Amino acid sequence: MLKEMTELTEIGRVRCFDGWQLRYRHHSPVLGCDMVFSVYLPPQAENTHLPHLYWLSGLTCDDQNFVTKAGAQRYAAEHGVIIIAPDTSPRGDGVPDTEAWDFAQGAGFYLNATQQPWSKNYQMESYLLNELIPLINETQPVIIHKRGIFGHSMGGHGALTLALKNHTLFQSVSAFAPICTPIHCPWGQQAFERYLGADQEKWKDYDSCELIKQHGLPWPIRVDQGLDDNFLGEQLMTESLVIACENQSHKLTLKMREGYDHSYFFIASFIGEHIAYHAQQLEG
Amino acid sequence: MLKEMTELTEIGRVRCFDGWQLRYRHHSPVLGCDMVFSVYLPPQAENTHLPHLYWLSGLTCDDQNFVTKAGAQRYAAEHGVIIIAPDTSPRGDGVPDTEAWDFAQGAGFYLNATQQPWSKNYQMESYLLNELIPLINETQPVIIHKRGIFGHSMGGHGALTLALKNHTLFQSVSAFAPICTPIHCPWGQQAFERYLGADQEKWKDYDSCELIKQHGLPWPIRVDQGLDDNFLGEQLMTESLVIACENQSHKLTLKMREGYDHSYFFIASFIGEHIAYHAQQLEG
Repeated sequence: MLKEMTELTEIGRVRCFDGWQLRYRHHSPVLGCDMVFSVYLPPQAENTHLPHLYWLSGLTCDDQNFVTKAGAQRYAAEHGVIIIAPDTSPRGDGVPDTEAWDFAQGAGFYLNATQQPWSKNYQMESYLLNELIPLINETQPVIIHKRGIFGHSMGGHGALTLALKNHTLFQSVSAFAPICTPIHCPWGQQAFERYLGADQEKWKDYDSCELIKQHGLPWPIRVDQGLDDNFLGEQLMTESLVIACENQSHKLTLKMREGYDHSYFFIASFIGEHIAYHAQQLEG
Repeated sequence: MLKEMTELTEIGRVRCFDGWQLRYRHHSPVLGCDMVFSVYLPPQAENTHLPHLYWLSGLTCDDQNFVTKAGAQRYAAEHGVIIIAPDTSPRGDGVPDTEAWDFAQGAGFYLNATQQPWSKNYQMESYLLNELIPLINETQPVIIHKRGIFGHSMGGHGALTLALKNHTLFQSVSAFAPICTPIHCPWGQQAFERYLGADQEKWKDYDSCELIKQHGLPWPIRVDQGLDDNFLGEQLMTESLVIACENQSHKLTLKMREGYDHSYFFIASFIGEHIAYHAQQLEG
């Protein structure tokens, strides 16, 4: 299996901030399809292994939105961190899909589906933890005990839940405009009902606010949220995360950003702060 | 006419690096169609008028490529400069077009066409000089005697030629991977023959290397060029610009960038240097 996993095909290599923006395709046995992901290697990676961050994107995105729009490479080069950007779901003609923009392909919610027809391919949690991370460890110059995770919207949900459930695997976490409690918002309810079935108890394993009740993290959670984000009230529910953290005395660094919306212009404006934050957390 | 010109419709307003990324639509009498352009206002623009830069994009682009991919807003906010990004051609159903990606819509070459059917709409030089600049002067907080121009590929050609012909209008110029001598490369020859007709003498008015022979600029030309740019030899011909400048003892600051290609990853890597360069030039 490991041999199969490591058959990476390089499909992109572009110079950027004196490092390399790379793109790979590989077959994923876990997802039952071919997958594409991107890696930014800063110039320091030529000579040494480096701390690294996984970026999880939001609904409708693939690996390219972050790579082309966030402007992260500048800061990754400045701080000497590698950034890995996976896709947001399994892909391809053989993978079940719908017409909806917020469910199925482009909307994997970083979970393991249990319901037909989704369960065969939609295993993004296992893909990331058991396939992509080992693959990156084996093929990229990463320091394997200096690993952070961050993301946007659905990807913010993914970053928070994966960190909360795997805090020996990750050492830092942050999010932009995360879906804080998917079991209580339309995006999450639609997805969880179809991916996970009607038993809402089983949904809680993919809900940041529920997971914080069960066990916190040994390090803070950092979140930035735009106050002019159209999705703030109905879908993101940042207030629920604040309450969950307060109830558990969990450290939350929350920056509410006046005038900012849900777009990559918001992400670009603060990605530098997030990368600096992770670099500092991973230094310890 | 001025009244007609100033009927701007705001079609986008997004917070970015504590300033505003704006997008406008307006009717252009010069081009005979509706046009869209973008403006980044850094936070300093709330209180004062600022130096400003026109960015001209390359083949196939509209105003959004630069806005979403260059990461320029960070540096514009740092240096307190406004950036205006126009479209690359007239647009719309009523505007003649072809199937080619490198001619007609998305490929106006910043010239005034003289040949049918192009001459009715393809008047990008007049649009920029006689319509957009007055419109920006009237509606945006710009210092009208601190105006720079820069661009990429076809837009680098546009920036260089417009500056060379209008050095009281502009006070600084730079380019990324410009088409240096369009009268000698396939992209330029195809476009100039159709826009300007068979008389190649008339093409020289839109060729940077020819214009440098006629009259130089009172300030340097700054160019960055990637050494792994696929278009370098056949289309861009940087060497011709070097020779033209040497022959006229014209100051050229040329940075050949090892490993960089023709993409926005190249632009993003050095846009900060260009904005700092313009800010310094315009300070004087």
